[in-house]
Amino acid sequence: MTQADTASTVLTPSLMTPEYLLADWQGHRRLTRRVIEAFPEDQLFTFTAAPPMRSFGEMAWELYGVALYTLEGLVTDEWPNPDWTEKPPHEKAALLAAWDELTRRMDAELPTVPPARYQEEKALFWGTMSALTTALYAIDNEIHHRGQGYVYLRALGIEPPPFYER
Amino acid sequence: MTQADTASTVLTPSLMTPEYLLADWQGHRRLTRRVIEAFPEDQLFTFTAAPPMRSFGEMAWELYGVALYTLEGLVTDEWPNPDWTEKPPHEKAALLAAWDELTRRMDAELPTVPPARYQEEKALFWGTMSALTTALYAIDNEIHHRGQGYVYLRALGIEPPPFYER
Repeated sequence: MTQADTASTVLTPSLMTPEYLLADWQGHRRLTRRVIEAFPEDQLFTFTAAPPMRSFGEMAWELYGVALYTLEGLVTDEWPNPDWTEKPPHEKAALLAAWDELTRRMDAELPTVPPARYQEEKALFWGTMSALTTALYAIDNEIHHRGQGYVYLRALGIEPPPFYER
Repeated sequence: MTQADTASTVLTPSLMTPEYLLADWQGHRRLTRRVIEAFPEDQLFTFTAAPPMRSFGEMAWELYGVALYTLEGLVTDEWPNPDWTEKPPHEKAALLAAWDELTRRMDAELPTVPPARYQEEKALFWGTMSALTTALYAIDNEIHHRGQGYVYLRALGIEPPPFYER
């Protein structure tokens, strides 16, 4: 890409490269994976620190689903209404296997997204927003629920993984 | 700023403008403010859903301190070792007043940060990282602890504010 190409895409000072977004997202997903692993198998899908809140395993499947939906939207530029009616298995091994497969797909596919797409407004079923906002929302939602998982682990007497290690 | 100026600053495709960063950060801080407000005065600095975790009020003062430190670092480009030994008052009104004053400062001062500074590596006491990473870390840390505040509110039987409203 030449400087002229860049200038035609970016008309205001910009802070974040696509490579940074991928590294940041995957760093968060690695940490979330460690939080999933830290739960005892028999607590991951049953324990809640504050009913009626869900188990962390159910939250983690949501995080997986949102990340998958967002990746596919960014790559294909199609943003259908998601179908999240199917209940994924309440098994740690199945969750981690899906998580790792998505990690591989994200590394392979996110770099194919045209950078200009991130600034475009997309009509999603939860509102119209830029594609960048959908990506950051997926990350923010993951941090939010993972923080809840930290409380669950503390309530179970388990030391959570360090937040700053990605 | 001309396109030539932009091209000299931005050599790879970039996704996030300084205006976006400010709006995103302030949106998160507005939501955190609503979470602080949602706590009963007598629980904000005393309740924990999972000992030995801190009260949400103490976490919120940390979030305030990290945001203030990060804003001042970005604006002045000085990154001294922070001094967080002084204990702020355990009073909701004092916390909210400080929060709102920082909101005003952030609106006024963050736009003065030269965009190129965000890519520069800074030696902080917790490690060397880009200024952008310090800003995003402050936001991520806020989302993380706010998510914990949601669990505390649920454990108190209080409905937290919607996560998606900023």
